[in-house]
Amino acid sequence: MEKQFIKDLKVGDKVKDLFGVVKKSLANYSSSSSKAPGQFMKLVLGDCTGTIEARLWEGVEDVIDLFNEGDVVLVEGYITEYNGLQINITSIEKYEGAVDLTLFQQTTGKDRREMAKRLNAIVQSIGNSYLKKLLISIFSDRKIYSAFINCPAAQTIHHAYIGGLLEHSLEVVQICELIASNYKDTINRDLLITGALLHDIGKIKEYNFSSISFNMTDIGKLIGHLVIGKEMIDEKIREIPNFPPELQLALSHMIISHHGEREWGSPEVPKTIEAFALFYGDLVSAKLNQFYNLLNKGVDSESGWTPWDKFLERSAYLINYSENGD
Amino acid sequence: MEKQFIKDLKVGDKVKDLFGVVKKSLANYSSSSSKAPGQFMKLVLGDCTGTIEARLWEGVEDVIDLFNEGDVVLVEGYITEYNGLQINITSIEKYEGAVDLTLFQQTTGKDRREMAKRLNAIVQSIGNSYLKKLLISIFSDRKIYSAFINCPAAQTIHHAYIGGLLEHSLEVVQICELIASNYKDTINRDLLITGALLHDIGKIKEYNFSSISFNMTDIGKLIGHLVIGKEMIDEKIREIPNFPPELQLALSHMIISHHGEREWGSPEVPKTIEAFALFYGDLVSAKLNQFYNLLNKGVDSESGWTPWDKFLERSAYLINYSENGD
Amino acid sequence: MEKQFIKDLKVGDKVKDLFGVVKKSLANYSSSSSKAPGQFMKLVLGDCTGTIEARLWEGVEDVIDLFNEGDVVLVEGYITEYNGLQINITSIEKYEGAVDLTLFQQTTGKDRREMAKRLNAIVQSIGNSYLKKLLISIFSDRKIYSAFINCPAAQTIHHAYIGGLLEHSLEVVQICELIASNYKDTINRDLLITGALLHDIGKIKEYNFSSISFNMTDIGKLIGHLVIGKEMIDEKIREIPNFPPELQLALSHMIISHHGEREWGSPEVPKTIEAFALFYGDLVSAKLNQFYNLLNKGVDSESGWTPWDKFLERSAYLINYSENGD
Amino acid sequence: MEKQFIKDLKVGDKVKDLFGVVKKSLANYSSSSSKAPGQFMKLVLGDCTGTIEARLWEGVEDVIDLFNEGDVVLVEGYITEYNGLQINITSIEKYEGAVDLTLFQQTTGKDRREMAKRLNAIVQSIGNSYLKKLLISIFSDRKIYSAFINCPAAQTIHHAYIGGLLEHSLEVVQICELIASNYKDTINRDLLITGALLHDIGKIKEYNFSSISFNMTDIGKLIGHLVIGKEMIDEKIREIPNFPPELQLALSHMIISHHGEREWGSPEVPKTIEAFALFYGDLVSAKLNQFYNLLNKGVDSESGWTPWDKFLERSAYLINYSENGD
Amino acid sequence: MEKQFIKDLKVGDKVKDLFGVVKKSLANYSSSSSKAPGQFMKLVLGDCTGTIEARLWEGVEDVIDLFNEGDVVLVEGYITEYNGLQINITSIEKYEGAVDLTLFQQTTGKDRREMAKRLNAIVQSIGNSYLKKLLISIFSDRKIYSAFINCPAAQTIHHAYIGGLLEHSLEVVQICELIASNYKDTINRDLLITGALLHDIGKIKEYNFSSISFNMTDIGKLIGHLVIGKEMIDEKIREIPNFPPELQLALSHMIISHHGEREWGSPEVPKTIEAFALFYGDLVSAKLNQFYNLLNKGVDSESGWTPWDKFLERSAYLINYSENGD
Amino acid sequence: MEKQFIKDLKVGDKVKDLFGVVKKSLANYSSSSSKAPGQFMKLVLGDCTGTIEARLWEGVEDVIDLFNEGDVVLVEGYITEYNGLQINITSIEKYEGAVDLTLFQQTTGKDRREMAKRLNAIVQSIGNSYLKKLLISIFSDRKIYSAFINCPAAQTIHHAYIGGLLEHSLEVVQICELIASNYKDTINRDLLITGALLHDIGKIKEYNFSSISFNMTDIGKLIGHLVIGKEMIDEKIREIPNFPPELQLALSHMIISHHGEREWGSPEVPKTIEAFALFYGDLVSAKLNQFYNLLNKGVDSESGWTPWDKFLERSAYLINYSENGD
Repeated sequence: MEKQFIKDLKVGDKVKDLFGVVKKSLANYSSSSSKAPGQFMKLVLGDCTGTIEARLWEGVEDVIDLFNEGDVVLVEGYITEYNGLQINITSIEKYEGAVDLTLFQQTTGKDRREMAKRLNAIVQSIGNSYLKKLLISIFSDRKIYSAFINCPAAQTIHHAYIGGLLEHSLEVVQICELIASNYKDTINRDLLITGALLHDIGKIKEYNFSSISFNMTDIGKLIGHLVIGKEMIDEKIREIPNFPPELQLALSHMIISHHGEREWGSPEVPKTIEAFALFYGDLVSAKLNQFYNLLNKGVDSESGWTPWDKFLERSAYLINYSENGD
Repeated sequence: MEKQFIKDLKVGDKVKDLFGVVKKSLANYSSSSSKAPGQFMKLVLGDCTGTIEARLWEGVEDVIDLFNEGDVVLVEGYITEYNGLQINITSIEKYEGAVDLTLFQQTTGKDRREMAKRLNAIVQSIGNSYLKKLLISIFSDRKIYSAFINCPAAQTIHHAYIGGLLEHSLEVVQICELIASNYKDTINRDLLITGALLHDIGKIKEYNFSSISFNMTDIGKLIGHLVIGKEMIDEKIREIPNFPPELQLALSHMIISHHGEREWGSPEVPKTIEAFALFYGDLVSAKLNQFYNLLNKGVDSESGWTPWDKFLERSAYLINYSENGD
Repeated sequence: MEKQFIKDLKVGDKVKDLFGVVKKSLANYSSSSSKAPGQFMKLVLGDCTGTIEARLWEGVEDVIDLFNEGDVVLVEGYITEYNGLQINITSIEKYEGAVDLTLFQQTTGKDRREMAKRLNAIVQSIGNSYLKKLLISIFSDRKIYSAFINCPAAQTIHHAYIGGLLEHSLEVVQICELIASNYKDTINRDLLITGALLHDIGKIKEYNFSSISFNMTDIGKLIGHLVIGKEMIDEKIREIPNFPPELQLALSHMIISHHGEREWGSPEVPKTIEAFALFYGDLVSAKLNQFYNLLNKGVDSESGWTPWDKFLERSAYLINYSENGD
Repeated sequence: MEKQFIKDLKVGDKVKDLFGVVKKSLANYSSSSSKAPGQFMKLVLGDCTGTIEARLWEGVEDVIDLFNEGDVVLVEGYITEYNGLQINITSIEKYEGAVDLTLFQQTTGKDRREMAKRLNAIVQSIGNSYLKKLLISIFSDRKIYSAFINCPAAQTIHHAYIGGLLEHSLEVVQICELIASNYKDTINRDLLITGALLHDIGKIKEYNFSSISFNMTDIGKLIGHLVIGKEMIDEKIREIPNFPPELQLALSHMIISHHGEREWGSPEVPKTIEAFALFYGDLVSAKLNQFYNLLNKGVDSESGWTPWDKFLERSAYLINYSENGD
Repeated sequence: MEKQFIKDLKVGDKVKDLFGVVKKSLANYSSSSSKAPGQFMKLVLGDCTGTIEARLWEGVEDVIDLFNEGDVVLVEGYITEYNGLQINITSIEKYEGAVDLTLFQQTTGKDRREMAKRLNAIVQSIGNSYLKKLLISIFSDRKIYSAFINCPAAQTIHHAYIGGLLEHSLEVVQICELIASNYKDTINRDLLITGALLHDIGKIKEYNFSSISFNMTDIGKLIGHLVIGKEMIDEKIREIPNFPPELQLALSHMIISHHGEREWGSPEVPKTIEAFALFYGDLVSAKLNQFYNLLNKGVDSESGWTPWDKFLERSAYLINYSENGD
Repeated sequence: MEKQFIKDLKVGDKVKDLFGVVKKSLANYSSSSSKAPGQFMKLVLGDCTGTIEARLWEGVEDVIDLFNEGDVVLVEGYITEYNGLQINITSIEKYEGAVDLTLFQQTTGKDRREMAKRLNAIVQSIGNSYLKKLLISIFSDRKIYSAFINCPAAQTIHHAYIGGLLEHSLEVVQICELIASNYKDTINRDLLITGALLHDIGKIKEYNFSSISFNMTDIGKLIGHLVIGKEMIDEKIREIPNFPPELQLALSHMIISHHGEREWGSPEVPKTIEAFALFYGDLVSAKLNQFYNLLNKGVDSESGWTPWDKFLERSAYLINYSENGD
């Protein structure tokens, strides 16, 4: 039997397949019938094509402790509509077999082989021998490379899917290349591009992405990816003979200052032009993706407006001008 | 005799040439000698190569009312050093002859013919017939075109020189092209690029740049270039038959929202992805130029640090790592 | 049969009448009975005397697409109490006949004929011939006049009912007259009063008030009533020969700056005393009405306190001191 | 010999008269002559018609300890111009004789007898017997009445002159009357007007206005006029039998909340409609006076703009439209 | 039969005992059965050992008006689990008999006799005779003393239980003693300790703690404990002959400024070192208790994290390092 | 000849001794005499007893490049008074001989031997073997220990003198001990005290205190003492076998979060109770010292008020109540 992908489900479909548990919670259940009131279970299930709400109305207590967020479950039920599609679950159980995680996590829409090639090409483009050695040292570390290729760039806000960190890092490089070309006399291009590639490297220890839900690790919450990333780079630099201390300082500064403002989590603001450019390159990539996600989450087809977004503090509008109209 | 350019002046030089009056003010003058205390005059003089401080210690009252900011003056004196170079003026008088303004205003370092070509190429690249007509209508208006080619993008903060508006607008187009290429399925590229070219068009009525000092006009201070610009565009659109109202609304929204936040002067925040992209494109171009200017204003050669900048709220650091070192 | 007005409904009443649909949404419906869980419909219904919550528990799917916010519906049901009164709907259908909209929209409690007279008297009181011509030109435009007389001043916060814009504008005039009388030597009274009358004129294009729910138009959300209003005035001024440009600039400045601060949506802050006075006149009228509405929404008869209001960020207290007590 | 009033002084005038010392400070004095460098004295001198800058260049050490801010001094010198008029002092000494303070303090431009009559009429208009008794008790206290009639409303920002508190209080009453008339069904007019009259009563202990410079008292700086004022009223209420506690609470709340926001110094925000109305009445009176003062401090006759004002954070513009032009 | 304490209840327990009503509200009740939908009642019940959620699903209308927050009720039901323990109520009625309030209010975990002793010792330690007289006068007032011993320090945030005010005041004294010992040459220790003991004395009139729920009084909401407290102290000082006015002013300043910033409700910021030290002593005691409460409210045993706390704007983490591990 | 200490200098004294150059700058020098205008030099000179302003009026150009901030200079001159004491320099030259730095830097007023003993006692009090090993490892590193004993805690704000870091760290320990004793069941006392001792350890690399002026290092400005400190500790931990990772994480979190808020430079806010307590302990020590310094900088003996302090945003008041008065 074919895998049933979330993006293909329609109202009335019978469902019987494996899904990832992205969120699990209980909600109030009340009734005037003779049975005692109880609870029902609210789930968000996911696979590599998206996520869907699901509800278990009966027998919650029998399964409540049998699976957790991040598990894969075998679900039976049918599709109803309630503020969007929803699976009405008739049976759910934890799947204990081996699973291909990539089937249950949302993944970048970009061609990952293509992105890996671009990553390599960027590394090769670095003229400064120390920075090139550093990048090679980092990306030839199989554990780091594999994580970097797979890690999401965030939990929910932007590029929040497998491969998102790589996609985001390449976008930041792209914007930084453009900025560097405009200020050739002042910007150290190799340094800027190296910082752009590595600025979020600490995220591979900040998110737990070997599971379905990209939850944050303790070290992610207590230390944060800026400081983690700086130390990962320092560790690799220690292995490179004669790495210029001034270059290390400049790179470290870029990593810990790339959030741009203290209230956004940078212990120091960007004080070199490379750090300053990196901050804006990162900002543009993250913000545009965030706005794009809002539009994709659902524009009302009649009005052209999305629902209110609490992070962007606005509804967005998709213009419905057809260019063929001219 | 050769024109003496400001960038070439050295301590001890005798000066006798025409300069523009960028700033004029009086300061306290005290003395324990028998003469009554008085005032001296502090000036900033400029030409197309930069600006220099100047002081008139004697005879202030004789010349105080004879020239104003924005005038060209014939200055005699010699160069001293006091927190940088300074002209010690021995004689100053308003120059009433005809002058070539371009000799007295700072001007973009970019090739303006080249920029004009790029502007034209961008207009030609617009596929949407209405937007193309609009751009052609605007830039074939000699008065607007001439102003657009010459206007500075700001009084002091960024691109504050003749040709700065054009230079800045092209930078914004460049970043917007990159963003548009990353979101081809959603962003209306023609609309975004049109907005990027025109976003600051209102500045040609906000600044008085036919003089030396780019002072703001009354309408600039009371209405501002966002609303002015929107109306200039509306006026041209009224002359284009059947211009789609939805397209006009989308473009108007981009112009008035391009400062991105209400506290930065936009009456509405960007609510379309084109307006949102324009805001970030504008931000990156303006901010990087501002930081670049700070580095150019003077890095201490020993420490690598600039003086404190009250707008960026930091000192900037120029890394002194020589790439040849590797 | 008599019209049943919302303000007269009591617990236990049978209801069968026409109402306007102010808000329509769905909510979760759960049950342990054998029937599948579903949804119920939450409505806010309104007429000219107020609004009331309503619920449809059964057959939601049969009617969900048959009417929308802003429609008039024929409702049958009975009144229950749940955090205030509520209609328990047994039958609901869209009313397709002709309706008198005024029966379904909340309306100012002031005498509108009286207000229209005062509006006229204010126009007549203007001594400056250009400003008087402008006001006459605007208010003799039947489409504008009719809209101005009917438009609400806001969707929810203050004067949010038919006739609210007129009522609010007259209040602002009243406060501005008082201010003008205190600074006769400096304030141009005719200009201030003209600005006070016209400051919110753009709202007639910002709200769609030909329906029950005063929802915002696209141009309202993307451009806003400040810029819209300025342009409506400019359009009329273009038809008045020799209208002094300085006067137009001063009036335009008042319109676009009347929110007083950039973060409140004014692209420029008030820089003339007339603009400054208008800002405070507008503020006082709006804020007092907002506080008054909070008190009217429901003071607890025992404690004297209203519920928490998220806009005013406080509960309000109605002092229960009886003056007869002295 | 006639008193020389500050408003009548012109460049070149010889001066020999009494003035009040509003500010006194020292500044750096340097010279390349053989004499040792020293200091000069910067003074602001005042009388009932205004203030003027003054300088003592010689013999500072001989007089430095002989007079202080708030003293009256006999000054000889002549008028020069330096960023406005300035007295060049040749001789200065403390005046030990009896002086009529009113000759040396700036004073309201309004007719004080007229204002006193209006104060009385307002008191008479109060219908509530307790509030009327309270007002009579307060204003028949000679010490309080005399202070209330003379006290300024602020040190510099608004109504900063003898009689300013009375003038400001009457303005606030006027605006509050207007608001009360618009919300007759809800606002307790007598309470609102009583609060409007008394809201700043604590200022008579906050400022020391028996001297030239309205400096703040220690209690003013450490406790503030809100709490001081509330206690002054409580003290009088204690003497009125059966004063209703609810009325006292409502009035106390008005006094301590009239700055409207915690960050503006109110320990609680206004929670009754009378307190809320008082806050806005106070705001309008204070802010308009502040803007008016900026315009009066000096509009550039050519440009129409005032200098930058750090409190209002803007330059103001006086429109130069002549109504006769129509 | 033994009293059933909340801290001892377990799932499945039958409950039949008296509890305090801490919170009472209604919630939506829906059903697809033939019965009409209705409401259920949400309660928070409390005793001296803690609080617990409770639900009444049937017969709400029969009891809704029979008891209120703050009453003691006789409850029958059984314990279920739903986001923590919950009482499923089968019968509830107001208890009209005499009750020992201390059985129904949460109470400090500290030994209150011990705390009373420390309070007395602190009073005895004051060397300054006026301050000592003041403290003795206040704490020998039986009404004040009894209230001070029992009052909570807040409604919910910190030390929100019977005896909390005393516990908190002693903590503040403790920190202030430490600060005073570090700045012996400057800090008036007796004044600081007196202020520390009395800083929150106004809270005994701000909270109504003779009931179960520590709701705020009208005077608490309209005036606040800073101003109330200052006046209580002033009243006692009036009875002490020759109390030095400077000392009274210094103490008054400490009371009204102890929230430290205007936006936190202090009409003036601390301007003496005693007021400044008191502010920080108060802050440390309150904040640490608030964080401690968050940890006690429930650390997830597996992850070590608490739920999100909206007041502290974070989740807290309890390190699970066992010291025995070393 | 005896060393002339700054604290002993009086007006009229002849000066001839060595001083440290704390600040060096130039200022405008003007004259109406025949000599050309020039510059004078403003200096702040310091020794271990304090700092003093100094002026060089003549011959600036001869010495301007011969010494810098941080050098020791041989100064001849005499004491004048101008806004406090000032050295009028007649001769100044760099001192090239060996100097005892401790004679030229301000130093803590506490007994440093005593403080060192307390430091040792605190280390000995740590029961947890890993934390004790860590502290011993750090403080037995002679380079770190020596720096820790000498480093100032800040450049200007608080504890800005040799030994200030040690003094401040001990104060923070003291407050943390008190907090730990109040929450014995929850706070890990050994961890808290270890964090308190080490929280500012990174400052020994942030300040250059081997010179007179405690200027910041590049790494201090680009990375900051929070991240520097965490890494210094990590480095030592790497040498301790089996150091529990959870303990290291908890300690690291304390170091990087001890500024408490992101806008104050902490990349994460304190999320453990030990980090939270440390933040408040640090805050109290720093703030009280800052206020104390303001009082010491100069209370006006007549009024009791200090000048305005821009960091604390207030003037401070020293109460002049004499306890003997009772």
